[in-house]
Amino acid sequence: MYELGVVYRNIQRADASVAEKLATFGSATVHEAMGRVGLMKTYMRPIYAGAQVSGTAVTVLMQPGDNWMLHVVAEQIKPGDIVVAAITTDNTDGFFGDLLATSFQARGARGLVIDAGCRDIRDLTEMGFPVWSRAISSKGTIKSTLGSVNIPVICAAQIIHPGDVIVADDDGVCVVRNAEATQVAEAAAKRAEMEEGKRKRLASGELGMDIYKFRETLAEMGLKYI
Amino acid sequence: MYELGVVYRNIQRADASVAEKLATFGSATVHEAMGRVGLMKTYMRPIYAGAQVSGTAVTVLMQPGDNWMLHVVAEQIKPGDIVVAAITTDNTDGFFGDLLATSFQARGARGLVIDAGCRDIRDLTEMGFPVWSRAISSKGTIKSTLGSVNIPVICAAQIIHPGDVIVADDDGVCVVRNAEATQVAEAAAKRAEMEEGKRKRLASGELGMDIYKFRETLAEMGLKYI
Amino acid sequence: MYELGVVYRNIQRADASVAEKLATFGSATVHEAMGRVGLMKTYMRPIYAGAQVSGTAVTVLMQPGDNWMLHVVAEQIKPGDIVVAAITTDNTDGFFGDLLATSFQARGARGLVIDAGCRDIRDLTEMGFPVWSRAISSKGTIKSTLGSVNIPVICAAQIIHPGDVIVADDDGVCVVRNAEATQVAEAAAKRAEMEEGKRKRLASGELGMDIYKFRETLAEMGLKYI
Amino acid sequence: MYELGVVYRNIQRADASVAEKLATFGSATVHEAMGRVGLMKTYMRPIYAGAQVSGTAVTVLMQPGDNWMLHVVAEQIKPGDIVVAAITTDNTDGFFGDLLATSFQARGARGLVIDAGCRDIRDLTEMGFPVWSRAISSKGTIKSTLGSVNIPVICAAQIIHPGDVIVADDDGVCVVRNAEATQVAEAAAKRAEMEEGKRKRLASGELGMDIYKFRETLAEMGLKYI
Amino acid sequence: MYELGVVYRNIQRADASVAEKLATFGSATVHEAMGRVGLMKTYMRPIYAGAQVSGTAVTVLMQPGDNWMLHVVAEQIKPGDIVVAAITTDNTDGFFGDLLATSFQARGARGLVIDAGCRDIRDLTEMGFPVWSRAISSKGTIKSTLGSVNIPVICAAQIIHPGDVIVADDDGVCVVRNAEATQVAEAAAKRAEMEEGKRKRLASGELGMDIYKFRETLAEMGLKYI
Amino acid sequence: MYELGVVYRNIQRADASVAEKLATFGSATVHEAMGRVGLMKTYMRPIYAGAQVSGTAVTVLMQPGDNWMLHVVAEQIKPGDIVVAAITTDNTDGFFGDLLATSFQARGARGLVIDAGCRDIRDLTEMGFPVWSRAISSKGTIKSTLGSVNIPVICAAQIIHPGDVIVADDDGVCVVRNAEATQVAEAAAKRAEMEEGKRKRLASGELGMDIYKFRETLAEMGLKYI
Repeated sequence: MYELGVVYRNIQRADASVAEKLATFGSATVHEAMGRVGLMKTYMRPIYAGAQVSGTAVTVLMQPGDNWMLHVVAEQIKPGDIVVAAITTDNTDGFFGDLLATSFQARGARGLVIDAGCRDIRDLTEMGFPVWSRAISSKGTIKSTLGSVNIPVICAAQIIHPGDVIVADDDGVCVVRNAEATQVAEAAAKRAEMEEGKRKRLASGELGMDIYKFRETLAEMGLKYI
Repeated sequence: MYELGVVYRNIQRADASVAEKLATFGSATVHEAMGRVGLMKTYMRPIYAGAQVSGTAVTVLMQPGDNWMLHVVAEQIKPGDIVVAAITTDNTDGFFGDLLATSFQARGARGLVIDAGCRDIRDLTEMGFPVWSRAISSKGTIKSTLGSVNIPVICAAQIIHPGDVIVADDDGVCVVRNAEATQVAEAAAKRAEMEEGKRKRLASGELGMDIYKFRETLAEMGLKYI
Repeated sequence: MYELGVVYRNIQRADASVAEKLATFGSATVHEAMGRVGLMKTYMRPIYAGAQVSGTAVTVLMQPGDNWMLHVVAEQIKPGDIVVAAITTDNTDGFFGDLLATSFQARGARGLVIDAGCRDIRDLTEMGFPVWSRAISSKGTIKSTLGSVNIPVICAAQIIHPGDVIVADDDGVCVVRNAEATQVAEAAAKRAEMEEGKRKRLASGELGMDIYKFRETLAEMGLKYI
Repeated sequence: MYELGVVYRNIQRADASVAEKLATFGSATVHEAMGRVGLMKTYMRPIYAGAQVSGTAVTVLMQPGDNWMLHVVAEQIKPGDIVVAAITTDNTDGFFGDLLATSFQARGARGLVIDAGCRDIRDLTEMGFPVWSRAISSKGTIKSTLGSVNIPVICAAQIIHPGDVIVADDDGVCVVRNAEATQVAEAAAKRAEMEEGKRKRLASGELGMDIYKFRETLAEMGLKYI
Repeated sequence: MYELGVVYRNIQRADASVAEKLATFGSATVHEAMGRVGLMKTYMRPIYAGAQVSGTAVTVLMQPGDNWMLHVVAEQIKPGDIVVAAITTDNTDGFFGDLLATSFQARGARGLVIDAGCRDIRDLTEMGFPVWSRAISSKGTIKSTLGSVNIPVICAAQIIHPGDVIVADDDGVCVVRNAEATQVAEAAAKRAEMEEGKRKRLASGELGMDIYKFRETLAEMGLKYI
Repeated sequence: MYELGVVYRNIQRADASVAEKLATFGSATVHEAMGRVGLMKTYMRPIYAGAQVSGTAVTVLMQPGDNWMLHVVAEQIKPGDIVVAAITTDNTDGFFGDLLATSFQARGARGLVIDAGCRDIRDLTEMGFPVWSRAISSKGTIKSTLGSVNIPVICAAQIIHPGDVIVADDDGVCVVRNAEATQVAEAAAKRAEMEEGKRKRLASGELGMDIYKFRETLAEMGLKYI
């Protein structure tokens, strides 16, 4: 049950260096490092290809068709943040465009994750301000109802607490709990390193069947070669 | 109720200079200038990123899986037109490809908006002929049933009259009534100018909260800071 | 009814030169040359724009959330193959990423067609390893249940037999039966040649109405010009 | 482009007896009688099975998440009307429930067609007040923005003018222009009568192949029996 | 690759008594008895609740918006058959209604499975002629292009050969290969019997944890109780 | 980030009498009483019409295609509970059927809310065991991976803590926090009582325009009558 009409100003952000570092691993490796959890729904897509960012979440909850709270959340942004915007019901209107992006960027935000629509795609691409959204839509919004800033929100089927770390790239969006960020970064680093070794062996033509020693288990389970 | 089997040759096109100028504002600004109306459904997507065009609508209605009328409409195209194609039922077949695009482009068309599928994406991208469609599909069509050309059609939930102005970009597709095009262009210009000033202030770090004087209203409505 | 737990090693691949040549025509022309059949559903999309490939199918069937068999199929890949992966139920998890792509590429595969999700999009784009998938997802998979390799599979509503030819590009994915590949290549070549002549005439402003002699038939069917 | 903030009180309703009679034919026969046009999208579904109604349209346009105008339209309802509600953007919130249904029913409305969500399904079923909607949702709405009443609206991809006839049943929703209602009723009656004769012959085991004399045409077109 | 324009008259139907008996087990038990395969996509839904049938497949392939071949297939129906209709592309038009149902029923068909739309729902419900379809739509179709009858077709992602057994109920639609029907019926009977015993024990309050002896395995795998 | 492989046995259930009473108000009224929040996505639909229940949540998290944990959760059910099942990724397989329903019912469960598929619809309907699910599917599942029981889960975009109250009916599914259940029940009772008075006045023909005194506000906002 959401608390409406409140703005929390003092939130506990995850460690800045850890929050920034997680981007280097990407959403897939990070979610694996957490035990294959933490991913938003696959309908969340980047508005342009190639962006890969991570940062600390400031959250905002809005009602359908009303983007007023995006101006309220702008004031709460600190450098290194990623804004996570949730709506109380399914809505694809264009809540966010180049003016708000200019403001967010000026405040130091690294991107926006919004469970609604986004517009001014060409401008945002030129500005290099990445957005992950459920839709692209020119549809404008109004400014007449209250929502909240920096409460826990559900966005694309994940719960995000203010200060959590968001990792977003071409593959999707992943959420890392603040308290687990350091540990996840270490696990992700190990995983990435291990994968690097595997990549070389696979590139040389060696098979995963041999590298991972799958043959025996598969035979035991009854796999037949004909 | 559609009139079938007719081609209207003499249509009233919106003023050419106005029709062309609207592209500079983009679909989002234009739809705002009209009072937040006139947008096609968000499932209409450009086949490649970056195109931003406007022009006068010539319309065509077809039955599912039958693209015959696209050849009929080709003859009605004048330079500066955008073809708007509607189908009598949901269908994603590839009604349009590089051959028809070659013909449309030779006739002076600036693009196609089609509530069905499109194919030959790579060729169309190289030709620089933009299409907004509901799907991409190799599925070919037949040529056996009549439709109509230059009747009012419903395309992606908007009604388009021949001669209306179409504004299409990465954000979507917007329709401007012929009779209102000049007035909308003026309103859009004002809006764009106003936004330009806002953009500079926001880029300097000033907040929308202060520029738009939201603080007092929000406080009155009960927004609490904690 | 699928046969589970088997790997067929000796499959009859379509003629390599024919299989390679079909890419030059693209999926739309090839499917037309077959009588407008053979296309996978339009939800199968390339992970990046511009790839156009063809090759012989090696097939793999998997259970939802389990990508183990992709390692098994890797061993069966020969240069010029395209892997076609089917799942026994709808699933969008990220079965395939850069490690498996490295292995597939090392074995000579030209691409992957998978009725599930794909991840590591940025890496795959840089590697130039094209994938057609129903979703993009960071969600990892497990390795615990058997499937099969090189049995006939249903992928995106087409049945694919091992050794069939796959043609995939920005427009979609088309399947050509092994036994018909040569004949289809000839028909496609004729069609492409014929289209080339049409393209020139259309580019010069000539109308399809005249080139295809549609006027008389349309008049007989009752098309009225007003 | 919608006109916002207006209520048209004097609309030209289609002839009451014709409007009522069309229900007896059903949406499928009526749309056939009009030349296979006039159907709303198939996502419009009845909230319970078995209702089959027709009546004159009073229309209402609303913004997403705001059902205020349903109270405004209630006052414009006359016995025999069906309310047609459109929203300016895709929205599935529950705009309509048992209280409004009580009011609509007291005013003589025969049903509601709404391109949004509906709630209180059990109550509406018990009241026998049929609704065709795009979704079922408990989500409540607010009362804060103006829309319009009795302007032409686009609902589920059809344009509806106030006073048009709506025919709705388990198969979907069909719109008949006011000016054409009498003629359509006659065509539908003929069609229904003709079908009655066919039904008897088919029930006795006679084949459509013989009744409609399809054999010769099919043979000419090349259908082969093996 | 579909063969177009042919009707196969002599097909090998599965044993009639087996084909009829499979209905008693239902689609879920039958698909389990086959190793969890053979199910059509879940978008195939019955037009009314409660029907549970099985029978031998006669198949038909049609082009979008054209139901001509349903009259051709009617002649090939024998008592105990279920018609399986596939379309060459995604299409939701209403291919089938009460007239064709009257004919199919008179010929002895037990139902229809169609990867397209169906209409006249109320009549079909009263007639007790069950249909599983992907959509309900009043949209009529034409009769102008050839398809085929009794060729193997892909319907809702399953391949169906003429003479295979179809099992359809509220849960969905399952396909059983002709050659495996007897064996599957035996396996399903065993499974049903076994389930009956389980049902009694579960109804008495005994837990599946104990009946299936899950506790030890779960503990070994590390499940912790807190 | 989900905790995997754990079963919490001692959870704080909401007061039983409150939990039971909330059903009488229905999901729409309850969610209004909470400030228009707490609703699951509208894709969650009842498997049969007319059920209206409420109870305390016991939760379960599962991996796609694996229903093992439903047996584990069965043991944790107490009379008056409703099981809430979440899956770590989108999956429509039939996790739940008549055997598990028999067990759940024997343990005193009032229903199941599952963000996946359900089967044995006819049996469940006859048993009167209501299920709200995202799909109906015969597809069986395996029993091989651990999940968790009675951890907080995200189901259809709501977070549910064990012991929260679930209210489910034909309109959808609503979640009430344990700590707020009593207060919400009171607010809902007041709202229901207030609505009862309104219903009578509306049934007598009085307009909401007058009952709620909308006329003046609408006039001030500029609504024009023509």
